[in-house]
Amino acid sequence: MRNFDYCAPTRFIFGRGVEKEAGAVLKPYAKKILLHFGGQNIKRSGLYDDITASLKAAGLDFVELGGVAPNPRVSLVRKGIELCKSEGVDLILAVGGGSVIDSSKAIAMGCLYEGDIWEVYEESKPVSKALPVATVLTIPAAGSEASGASVITNEEKSMKLGYTSQALRPLVSFVDPELFFTLPKNQIANGVTDMMSHVFERYFTNTVHTDLTDGLCEAVLKTIMKNALILAGDPHNYDAWCEIGYSGTVAHIDMLGMGREEDWACHGMEHELSAIYDVAHGAGLAVLTPGWMRYVYKDNINMFVQFAVNIMGVSGSFRDPDAIVLEGITRLEDFFSKMGLAASLSELGIGEETFEQMAKKATGVAYGMEEQALGGLKKLYWQDVLAIYKLVK
Amino acid sequence: MRNFDYCAPTRFIFGRGVEKEAGAVLKPYAKKILLHFGGQNIKRSGLYDDITASLKAAGLDFVELGGVAPNPRVSLVRKGIELCKSEGVDLILAVGGGSVIDSSKAIAMGCLYEGDIWEVYEESKPVSKALPVATVLTIPAAGSEASGASVITNEEKSMKLGYTSQALRPLVSFVDPELFFTLPKNQIANGVTDMMSHVFERYFTNTVHTDLTDGLCEAVLKTIMKNALILAGDPHNYDAWCEIGYSGTVAHIDMLGMGREEDWACHGMEHELSAIYDVAHGAGLAVLTPGWMRYVYKDNINMFVQFAVNIMGVSGSFRDPDAIVLEGITRLEDFFSKMGLAASLSELGIGEETFEQMAKKATGVAYGMEEQALGGLKKLYWQDVLAIYKLVK
Repeated sequence: MRNFDYCAPTRFIFGRGVEKEAGAVLKPYAKKILLHFGGQNIKRSGLYDDITASLKAAGLDFVELGGVAPNPRVSLVRKGIELCKSEGVDLILAVGGGSVIDSSKAIAMGCLYEGDIWEVYEESKPVSKALPVATVLTIPAAGSEASGASVITNEEKSMKLGYTSQALRPLVSFVDPELFFTLPKNQIANGVTDMMSHVFERYFTNTVHTDLTDGLCEAVLKTIMKNALILAGDPHNYDAWCEIGYSGTVAHIDMLGMGREEDWACHGMEHELSAIYDVAHGAGLAVLTPGWMRYVYKDNINMFVQFAVNIMGVSGSFRDPDAIVLEGITRLEDFFSKMGLAASLSELGIGEETFEQMAKKATGVAYGMEEQALGGLKKLYWQDVLAIYKLVK
Repeated sequence: MRNFDYCAPTRFIFGRGVEKEAGAVLKPYAKKILLHFGGQNIKRSGLYDDITASLKAAGLDFVELGGVAPNPRVSLVRKGIELCKSEGVDLILAVGGGSVIDSSKAIAMGCLYEGDIWEVYEESKPVSKALPVATVLTIPAAGSEASGASVITNEEKSMKLGYTSQALRPLVSFVDPELFFTLPKNQIANGVTDMMSHVFERYFTNTVHTDLTDGLCEAVLKTIMKNALILAGDPHNYDAWCEIGYSGTVAHIDMLGMGREEDWACHGMEHELSAIYDVAHGAGLAVLTPGWMRYVYKDNINMFVQFAVNIMGVSGSFRDPDAIVLEGITRLEDFFSKMGLAASLSELGIGEETFEQMAKKATGVAYGMEEQALGGLKKLYWQDVLAIYKLVK
């Protein structure tokens, strides 16, 4: 186990109807709130009314900014920063999924940052302060309600970049599993894939002596897969949504990765797909993850045997570890297939013509930078990334 | 899963030599520190010198108070409060195990509480403020470095009472597994039993639909047992201490119990042993836990089958669930035995003459209060507690 430094101070208020406490809980922290959200769904569903009623009952003033799209745009972030500054907003309340929360975090940083917010993402500027962010989660997937991470897309530059800082950990997150009942099946599938990937990115490591975090990762992955299949058949199952909702948080609260070298190659490769094609992050990950596994497993076959046995339930002769691993990967592909997810880039509408460009962007080569290999378990250079894209074309 | 409200803001700095960062890390939070500890071990080992050098290098002033004993006494707490008030202390640095940390938390509360601190414990007074507490952990066991709990003994009243408040969560905890190398074998055994009990108290529940937290509990328990046996033979094994050190924190950071009804009967029954006989908390738990299991398992046999299979690795015919459960309990007893722990109260020097008195104290009957049953999985009244004491006499 490696040395580590862990602090996840976010408060989680979890259960039926908890979003109605938003006003009372946020009252000590804010005078004027930016209510940030995506489309009009939250108005149709009554969620907007519930939350604004709660804010009003607490005597909290608010302004609103909707319109966050999947792969949230820096252009809207800039608009949000301007609005907050002119209105004197002191807390951002994100009502939505990862995109809305990530956009809220960018706005929260931008309000206290001198200069254009995109610099922070592109130049990895150190930022230690931001307005407080609270979240009402409507899509369990990104884990942004628990993390200090934010991923923003610059549509002019076709760049999708992540930024992480302790200052971005939400103050409080309200997680009401009943709010997930109306998610369409493809969003359920994309969401569980994203949270599984957050665990895989931490799980697959060359760090040894990691019994505790291995076991925690395995428990979270098994819980997600079991309950995702329940939801695929019964999207109003409250108990299954509780498991998925809490799992998404635990997956990305960083506890599972402490003391381990993490990987993050699949996320890096996927961001390039989303930057150009605007595919859902989870859909891209479901295609790339098994391909990545097939490409890298021989570099640490014991880690992949553990994955196959402890998570995918493979048994049989351990004298052929390749067969164990490949059966584990096949079972993962079967799971994604049962969830209705695509198995190839072409099914996502992504053609080979951009593979080389994306591989070079993912590793920085396209920007004339020194090549930055992806991954921890196996270093992936641009030719490796290209090979993986081709493997799942 | 039940609704929950979770917030564990403590920062954990984990790894070799991290206690030497204490001064630099605490500098923004304090001007004058109370260094609170137990015996002279920390002076002999050089730990005291390392920490005081770090404080001095950061320009931090400090006073010290040693002498904390196992089952920390309210008399020393009162002395600490007086000292802090007269010296203008603004942060308590606990250097020790659970007793030192619990004593520090009591002092931290007492500095800002009007009235005698014992009232808070005996009358469960609501307390929302305390001086910040930092910890340098020297015994992984109690989980107090992660929790908002503090257990204090009133030696005049022979009462050992716990108190929990968010205000008592440490600001920061330094966990250096190398500091555990010199622990004697009985302290290792007591410590792992205590952290296992923190998981058991959360694991055994009648709450259903708890896949995630079930799996997390099982992972922590298996990690602890595997690595405790390594340490029993090789107490300088750094990797095993990393697993135990992180497990002790995760066991008591409350994440594992969220959404579940918790039990805590074994802790309640054990506190009475420690209050009168001053036995080590873990040693008492190792005796009581299997007895409690045998007494209650029929009330939720499926939960105990899960324990036997998923944690203790029992397999065989599920047509005889009692046999599965009893084999699981026997394996747990075997584990405690391998760790050198006593299997009966008489081995701990506790005779039957106090059983009824302890059973009545544990349930409040001895104080003329309305009887307060212990436990969540099965309600235990004083006769039940007496029966369990007799079962493990």
